[in-house]
Amino acid sequence: MITLKDIKEAKTKLEGIILQTPLTYAPFLSKEFNSNIYLKKENLQLTGSFKIRGAFNKVASLDKETRDIGIVAASAGNHAQGIAYAGNYFGCEATIFMPEATPLTKVSGVKQYGAKVVLGGQNYDDAYSAAIKYAEENNKTFIHPFADDKVIAGQGTIGLEIIEELKDLDILVIPIGGGGLIAGAAVAAKSVNPNIKVIGVVASGARGMKESHESRLPIDSAYVKTIADGIAVRVVTPKMLDYALEFVDEIVEVEEQEIANAILFLLEKHKLVVEGAGAVSVAALMHKKIDIENSKVCAIISGGNIDVTMLSQIIEKGLVKSFRKMNLMVTLIDKPGSLMHLTSIFQSSDANIVQIDYDRSSINLEFGEAYLTVSLETKGEEHQKLIRENLKHNGYRFKQI
Amino acid sequence: MITLKDIKEAKTKLEGIILQTPLTYAPFLSKEFNSNIYLKKENLQLTGSFKIRGAFNKVASLDKETRDIGIVAASAGNHAQGIAYAGNYFGCEATIFMPEATPLTKVSGVKQYGAKVVLGGQNYDDAYSAAIKYAEENNKTFIHPFADDKVIAGQGTIGLEIIEELKDLDILVIPIGGGGLIAGAAVAAKSVNPNIKVIGVVASGARGMKESHESRLPIDSAYVKTIADGIAVRVVTPKMLDYALEFVDEIVEVEEQEIANAILFLLEKHKLVVEGAGAVSVAALMHKKIDIENSKVCAIISGGNIDVTMLSQIIEKGLVKSFRKMNLMVTLIDKPGSLMHLTSIFQSSDANIVQIDYDRSSINLEFGEAYLTVSLETKGEEHQKLIRENLKHNGYRFKQI
Repeated sequence: MITLKDIKEAKTKLEGIILQTPLTYAPFLSKEFNSNIYLKKENLQLTGSFKIRGAFNKVASLDKETRDIGIVAASAGNHAQGIAYAGNYFGCEATIFMPEATPLTKVSGVKQYGAKVVLGGQNYDDAYSAAIKYAEENNKTFIHPFADDKVIAGQGTIGLEIIEELKDLDILVIPIGGGGLIAGAAVAAKSVNPNIKVIGVVASGARGMKESHESRLPIDSAYVKTIADGIAVRVVTPKMLDYALEFVDEIVEVEEQEIANAILFLLEKHKLVVEGAGAVSVAALMHKKIDIENSKVCAIISGGNIDVTMLSQIIEKGLVKSFRKMNLMVTLIDKPGSLMHLTSIFQSSDANIVQIDYDRSSINLEFGEAYLTVSLETKGEEHQKLIRENLKHNGYRFKQI
Repeated sequence: MITLKDIKEAKTKLEGIILQTPLTYAPFLSKEFNSNIYLKKENLQLTGSFKIRGAFNKVASLDKETRDIGIVAASAGNHAQGIAYAGNYFGCEATIFMPEATPLTKVSGVKQYGAKVVLGGQNYDDAYSAAIKYAEENNKTFIHPFADDKVIAGQGTIGLEIIEELKDLDILVIPIGGGGLIAGAAVAAKSVNPNIKVIGVVASGARGMKESHESRLPIDSAYVKTIADGIAVRVVTPKMLDYALEFVDEIVEVEEQEIANAILFLLEKHKLVVEGAGAVSVAALMHKKIDIENSKVCAIISGGNIDVTMLSQIIEKGLVKSFRKMNLMVTLIDKPGSLMHLTSIFQSSDANIVQIDYDRSSINLEFGEAYLTVSLETKGEEHQKLIRENLKHNGYRFKQI
């Protein structure tokens, strides 16, 4: 296992290469949970995530000759960008294996650093096997995304930055996928102050490390699925479980909706774009998965590489959930003037219509009736109640959808 | 006019209150424009914008007695939050006048700091008049959003932070609305190094200060409209024009689409949520409005308070513009199997269908035909070309919409 010394060495290697990302007090969360909460904004790191720390440290640790033969990785995401960045920096060829269906933005995110991309296979496991095979056949160095001590030491530098700024930290909250980030950061934090509690957060759709931590056995999940794709890791490796058992006090889990809430909160209140995996730490605080009262807490926001289409969907659903948007299906009498009458009710209720759809051919309708599906911009729960009451008062049948 | 001394005094007052926001190298922009570009990320400031600097400095400069009678402002946006924050800090009553139609999020953004909100009037001018009248009648202190030397000195502290970090800066690019930010920041920068070029950026929908700067006369616009609502200022005050004429070298303008592009760029590449007004500086760089080759440039990102619904729309339109989404209207023969045949073409072209709409009642159609409106997720310009060719090759009539 690595020690503080390895992390300090990594820090020297990363000096002047990566950014020291902001560590900022979070006033709203702190007030709400009666504690002092700080956010380590690693989504603002180069390549948009912490992964560059480990990847760069590993590549920097190879001797020049090995490096020049080439480096290989399997990843559709943040590790890929980290490796590509490091390859570009050292002028060595980086080959990244990605599953066939990887979105274009992720492919071009890696290509922009001059890395070679090989698309193939149905999923990560396929890309992983292909990468290992290719590296062996070509005598190139395969770099594992987490189960590698140089990678872990690199990730650990984030822990070092945090405890240097927050000397009296009580609790450190960290996303867990493969476990590289929490292993490195926990070694750093606990070496300086063994009293710091290290809490890991998994997505409920990928809870392998939580189950393994509880059973003390490395459990592979048959299937993982979560919007926190950066921590959707299927296989728990014995090495990473050893780190977790040694250095992680507790692992909690968050649901998909809780992750989405945290993403929207960070977007609106902190002006940050955060990916699902990066938001689970804040989700755990917001949804009281951890007892933090009267503590000094730091949550690592590990990355910001979220697809903007997904972001758009999270915003949309978040608006509905927070009563700022309301979707209604209203049954209308299909005759001239009935739509006008309905819209006059919305107007007098001060609700702004953003989308409308009219259908009179549904088989659920009586003859002479029509369905109107309408999306309204609303001002909160009370406002929505008022609109519903106005509709009822005017004799409309409707349901909220 | 204020001097560097006033700004330094403001800096002392703001010490420990506001954040020193990150000033970060922008690798993609720098590479593309062959220069060294830095971004001052003031969207990460408390209250989500620089306005707290001026507002807090002004309120802190009032004597306790005056403050205790109460402070008043007119604003639907960032100034309101700054005043509310300062009022809350000093425990004095802040009353904010906002136009009737102000969105709920902006109202609650101010209320969360305990300020009183008075909604009334059709627009900013109405709220402004009401605020002035209320302040006079109640002997309270009205705080102007920009034409006030204490406010200007507060905004100037951002200039001081920048030149302390970037001593050899060549060009400073700053959004202009009322002109408070650019006045303060320019005084700070030019006092330390008179060779720094200060460039202002207006939105083309609110170009009052640009026209005034060129004609050297304060021009009021009859009408302003831009997605950069934070700089949609109708009236150019003589005081602010004096500052601009003295300290601003050039004012450029950016179009709505350019602002939207910058917002999307900052979202995707820098993981930052930036409002329209905050993005105009980056828009000006991205769209070559300023000659920056071989220079060290700092663009101020002034704020991040953008409505998430607007953000969603910008993402949506940006995806279409950057060839990652394609909307087609295809004419189909209205018979069984024709939709299946079309979708098989999309499938073989590797285009993911995200939305579909089928209409056979349009008066533009021949009998037996139907319109299919379809949204596809695509991988770039080449991919879209391929899809169009596949459709043509199979004899489909269609248009891109």
